[in-house]
Amino acid sequence: MSEHDDYLHAMRHSLAHIMAASVQKLWPEAKFGVGPVVENGFYYDIDLGDTKISEQNFAKIEKTMRGIIDYGDTFERFEKPIDEAIAWAKENSQPYKEELLNDLKRSGTTVAKDLDADELGAITDGDSAVENVSFYKNGIFTDLCRGPHVANTKDVGAFKLMRVAGAYWRGNEKNPQMQRLYGVAFATQEELDVYLERLEQAKLRDHRKLGKELDLYTISPLVGAGLPLFTPRGTVLRDLMAQYSNQLRQARGFEKVFTPHITKTELYETSGHWAKFGEELFLVTSQETKDKMALKPMNCPHHTQIYVSRPRSYKDMPVRFLETTTDYRDEKTGELGGLNRVRSLTQDDSHVFCRQDQLEDEINGLLASANELYATIDMKLRVRLSYRDDGDGYLGDAILWQSAQEQLKAAVLRNNLEYFEQEGEAAFYGPKIDFMATDAIGREHQVATVQLDFVQPERFGLEYIDQEGNAARPVMIHCALLGSIERFLSVFIEHTGGWFPFWVAPEQVRILTINDTVLDYVADIEEVLRGATLMQPIKYNELRFSRDDRNESLGKKIREATIWKIPVQLIVGEKDKESREVSVRTQSGEEKVQLDKLAEYLKQL
Amino acid sequence: MSEHDDYLHAMRHSLAHIMAASVQKLWPEAKFGVGPVVENGFYYDIDLGDTKISEQNFAKIEKTMRGIIDYGDTFERFEKPIDEAIAWAKENSQPYKEELLNDLKRSGTTVAKDLDADELGAITDGDSAVENVSFYKNGIFTDLCRGPHVANTKDVGAFKLMRVAGAYWRGNEKNPQMQRLYGVAFATQEELDVYLERLEQAKLRDHRKLGKELDLYTISPLVGAGLPLFTPRGTVLRDLMAQYSNQLRQARGFEKVFTPHITKTELYETSGHWAKFGEELFLVTSQETKDKMALKPMNCPHHTQIYVSRPRSYKDMPVRFLETTTDYRDEKTGELGGLNRVRSLTQDDSHVFCRQDQLEDEINGLLASANELYATIDMKLRVRLSYRDDGDGYLGDAILWQSAQEQLKAAVLRNNLEYFEQEGEAAFYGPKIDFMATDAIGREHQVATVQLDFVQPERFGLEYIDQEGNAARPVMIHCALLGSIERFLSVFIEHTGGWFPFWVAPEQVRILTINDTVLDYVADIEEVLRGATLMQPIKYNELRFSRDDRNESLGKKIREATIWKIPVQLIVGEKDKESREVSVRTQSGEEKVQLDKLAEYLKQL
Repeated sequence: MSEHDDYLHAMRHSLAHIMAASVQKLWPEAKFGVGPVVENGFYYDIDLGDTKISEQNFAKIEKTMRGIIDYGDTFERFEKPIDEAIAWAKENSQPYKEELLNDLKRSGTTVAKDLDADELGAITDGDSAVENVSFYKNGIFTDLCRGPHVANTKDVGAFKLMRVAGAYWRGNEKNPQMQRLYGVAFATQEELDVYLERLEQAKLRDHRKLGKELDLYTISPLVGAGLPLFTPRGTVLRDLMAQYSNQLRQARGFEKVFTPHITKTELYETSGHWAKFGEELFLVTSQETKDKMALKPMNCPHHTQIYVSRPRSYKDMPVRFLETTTDYRDEKTGELGGLNRVRSLTQDDSHVFCRQDQLEDEINGLLASANELYATIDMKLRVRLSYRDDGDGYLGDAILWQSAQEQLKAAVLRNNLEYFEQEGEAAFYGPKIDFMATDAIGREHQVATVQLDFVQPERFGLEYIDQEGNAARPVMIHCALLGSIERFLSVFIEHTGGWFPFWVAPEQVRILTINDTVLDYVADIEEVLRGATLMQPIKYNELRFSRDDRNESLGKKIREATIWKIPVQLIVGEKDKESREVSVRTQSGEEKVQLDKLAEYLKQL
Repeated sequence: MSEHDDYLHAMRHSLAHIMAASVQKLWPEAKFGVGPVVENGFYYDIDLGDTKISEQNFAKIEKTMRGIIDYGDTFERFEKPIDEAIAWAKENSQPYKEELLNDLKRSGTTVAKDLDADELGAITDGDSAVENVSFYKNGIFTDLCRGPHVANTKDVGAFKLMRVAGAYWRGNEKNPQMQRLYGVAFATQEELDVYLERLEQAKLRDHRKLGKELDLYTISPLVGAGLPLFTPRGTVLRDLMAQYSNQLRQARGFEKVFTPHITKTELYETSGHWAKFGEELFLVTSQETKDKMALKPMNCPHHTQIYVSRPRSYKDMPVRFLETTTDYRDEKTGELGGLNRVRSLTQDDSHVFCRQDQLEDEINGLLASANELYATIDMKLRVRLSYRDDGDGYLGDAILWQSAQEQLKAAVLRNNLEYFEQEGEAAFYGPKIDFMATDAIGREHQVATVQLDFVQPERFGLEYIDQEGNAARPVMIHCALLGSIERFLSVFIEHTGGWFPFWVAPEQVRILTINDTVLDYVADIEEVLRGATLMQPIKYNELRFSRDDRNESLGKKIREATIWKIPVQLIVGEKDKESREVSVRTQSGEEKVQLDKLAEYLKQL
C-alpha cells in the first residue's frame, strides 16, 4: 500500500468512528458491532432496537459528523487489560463488543476467524497471548480498535453517507439483525464528486435497465435465473461481436469447429477438470442409459478430441480451432444478476495446437487481435500476467511452468503492453495473460485471455509426427477475445451507455418523415441504404434500418428514436426531397448530406 | 396392399421356404425357427449347432434353390389337428416349431405376442380356438405356415442371398443363438439389379465412410455416442447450409434470437411437452441449487418467453423468430449411428407469431422457402399432410384442429405441391406439412416441416392488442427447413456422394502446380480467387481455396484432390503462365479459362 492508500484507510476508518460517535449522540441507546473500511469508504453495524435509520436521517447524522470534525478532537490511543476491557463493554451496555472481547480472551487471535480481519474493530495487543486491548477515543466516543487513525477529526477528507441495509451480526442469520450504515470517503471533495458522478453514470448505464429499455434480452421465470434469452436486437449485438472476434482470428488461420454441449464425464476425468471443478458442473442424467454426463463448462477437452481424430504432421501445425459456443456453470442462484453473472455463458473460444517453435508467433497474433478489438470499441487495455503460486492445485512440471511464465512475459514486453504480475491467478494447467479493459466511466473489467497449456496435451496424449518421423507433443494455447459474450455485453452496454458504435447498433438508421408527400423519396433513400454494405470493422455488414412514417409530429419521432438510441436519424421533409438531400441527425449534431453521398457518409461513421 | 404387393409378399415368403428346403438338403440336421417376409426380401432363422454358414456357402445354397425352382414343385396346403402337428415336429426333430405349437395349443392366438405377426410362419386355423394348424409342402420340404404362397416354385422372381447374422431365438438373449439367413427378391431380374446397384451406391455413399474420408466429423469415445464433433470441413458445411436456410427466411422478415440450451422443467410443464415427452429428456441437476432442469429437446417454449417479454400490438405482427440451435434428445445408445440418429441435433428452427388473417401469407412464404432450398440442392420434394387421428394424445379444440388441417391442405393445393395425407402423424399441438425429399439414388427422406399450433399460445397466455384495443391470441407456426442439420447432412452427403455443390464445398478450389517456375503466377491466381466472392445462392460467400505446390507429380496431386472430392482443380503449368490461362478440371471435364475470366467462370458454377 502506498502512503496515500495508508492515509485513505486511516481517514475512512476514522470516519467510521466519527459516524458511530454521531449515531451515539443522536441515539444514546445504540449498540455497536464492527465498523471496518471497505472499497471507497466504510460502514458500521449498529443495533438500535426497533428504531430504524432511514435515508431521511442521513442529513442529521452527516451534520452531527461535521460538527465533530469541525470541533477538532484528537484520536487518542490507549490500552486496557482484557478483563478491564470486558468490564468497560458491560458498563457501557455494548453487548457485541463484550462478545468480541470474551471470544478474544478465550481464543486469542483466532476470534477473528468468522470476520474478515479488516472488519474487526479490535485486535489483540500481542501476537497470540492476549494481555492488553487497544482503544481509540475521540471526544467522548471510545471504541476498542486496532487503529491506525488520523491524528485529529479535522484530518478526514470528503465523505457522504450512501445507504443503510440489514446485516446479521457476524453474518449468521441466527444472530440479531443490525443496521449497516455505509459511507464513501475520498481525500478531496473533487475526488468524491468524481466518484459520485461515476456512480450516477453507472446507474444510468446499468445494463439491466438498458437491456430492458433497448429490448436486448429477457429473463423468464419459467426458464430460470441466470439463463438470459436474447431478443432480435440483443442477438444482433451478440452475433456481430462474435463475428468480429472470429474474423480477427480467421484472418490468422483459425478455422471454425462445432462440438456438442454435453459429454460423458470421462472426458473431464481425463483432462483433470473433474477433480478440480466437478462440483461446479451441471450433471446430465440420461433416462434411457446409465451414461454419466455433464454440461460442458469449457471447450478445450472437446477440441482435443477433434485434434486426435486424424494423424497430424509437423507440416500441418499449427492446427487452430475456433468455436463460439455456450458453456454452462452451476452458479448459485443468489449470485446471478443481469448478464454479468450467468449460468449460460457463450465463449468466443479458440485453441491453437502448435510446435514449441511456433509459440511466439501464435501468441503475438492473439495479442494483436485483442488489441485491435478493444481499440475498435474504445477501451483501454492492460494485462495481468497470471502466474501460479505455491499452492498444490497446479498440474504439470514446475520447470515447464517457469519457462511458460517467462515466455508469456516476453510476449507482453515484446508487444509493449502495460502489465502487472500476479501470483495465484493461473489456470490449473498453465499461466495466463488476462486482459483488463477500462470502460468509459473508468472501471476496469477482465475480458480477453490467452493461456498456455502443457498439461492437456499430455493427459490426452496429443501428438504430431516431427520432421524426423518421431511422435512429438504439441503445446496448446487457449484464447477468448470477448470472454463470456454475456459478461462482455454487460460491460459493453454500460461502456457505451446503450449508444453502440454505428457498425454494431441493432438498428443503425431510422428514417423519420415530416409528412406523407415524401414517401416516394423515402423509397429512394431505402434503395441507397440497401446497397450500402459496411466492410469495416467487420465485412459484409448490411445496414439495419427502419422508417417511421407514422402520422405523428417530427418531435415525437425524434424523441422515440433517441429513446431507442438510434445512432443515425435521417429526417426527410419536402425541401430535402427537392434538393435530393437528407438531414442526418447523430450524437454529434445535425447536417445535410446529398443522397448520392449518403452511402459514403455512413461508411465513414 | 395392391395385387402386385400381394404377389411380392407371397413369392418372397415362398423363397423363404425354398431357402429352408435347400438348407435342409445341404445340412439335414438343420432346425428351423421362423422365416418371415421383410422389406425387399425374406429371412429364415436356422439352428445348425456348431456349423456356421458363411458367405462362402451362399453360392451352394443359391444353386440348390435354383434347382428346386427349376424343378417346379407345387406349394400344397394341408391341415393337421394341433396334437398331430406337435407329433410331426417331434418326429422331425424341430424343437422350435414344437415350442411354437405347444404355445399355440396353450394360449390360442396369443402365442405370437413376442413375435411380429409377420415373423410367425404358423398360425391358428380359427380366430381364437385352436383346432387345426395349416402346413405348406413343396417337394419333400414341409413347414407349418399361414401362407399364402405362389402356386409353384417356378413362380418366384429374381433373388439373391445377402448376409447371415446371429439372432437369439424369439429375440431373447437367454435363448439359443440361431443363424439368420437373409435374401432379397423382386419380381424381375431388372428390378433386383436396380436394387442391388442402389445398395452398392448407398454403400459407396455411406456418410459414415465419407464423413471419415472427407474429414467432416468425428465421434469420440470420451465424449460419447451420438454426440458428433464437427471438424473444420464439416463445420463449413453445417454453417453454410444453416446460413442459406436462415437467409431464405431473413429475406421474409425473420429475425435471429438466442436462447440457452437448458431450462427449468416448469417451462415444459406449462407447454404440455413434459407430460408427453418427459421421459425422453436429458435431466439436468444443479449441485448448487434444487432447480429441476432439463436440456431443451425443442425451442418453441423458449421462443414464447421472448414473445411475452414485451407488449405486442396488432401492428407488430407477425413476430418472426429464427434460431439455429442444438437440441438434445435422450436416444438409446444402441440406436445411434453416424449423423442419422444423434443425441445432439441442431435445428434451423423458426417460429412465427401471427394474426389469423396473416396465416396464409406466412405459410406460403415458408413453403416457397422450402421449395427454393431443395431445388438448389437438386432434391425433389413432395409433402405429407400430417393430421391427427382418434388418439387422445392431442391437445386443443377439435374444431380448431379441423380448420387448421383444412388451411394446411389449402396452402399445399395453392402451391401445387405433390402431396399425400396421413392421419396420426400430427404434433400434439397441431397438424403439420412434412416435406419428403428424394435423393440421387431414389430414397425418400423426411426433411423440412411447417406446423400450426393453437395450443402453446393458449397455454403460455400469448397475446397482442388488436385494432379495437382488446387482447387477442396469436397463432404459432413452427418451421425448420433443414430439420436436424446433423440428419440433413447424413442425407446430403449420401445424396451428393461427397461431391458437394461448388458453393458449399468445404474446399472449393485447389491449385495444382506442375513445377516451381509457376509460383509467381500462382500468386496472381490466388489474388483473383481472393477477390471472387460468391453471391448465389448465399451472399458474401468467400472462395475457399488452397494450393498444392509440393514437389510431387501432377498425377499424384490430381489423384489426391479427387480423393478429397475438390470440385474445381486448377492445373497450372508454364504454358498456362505464358498465356495467362488456367486448366480448370471439374467433374464435367477439363477446359482452359483465361485468368481474367476465372472469377466470372467460378461464379457461374
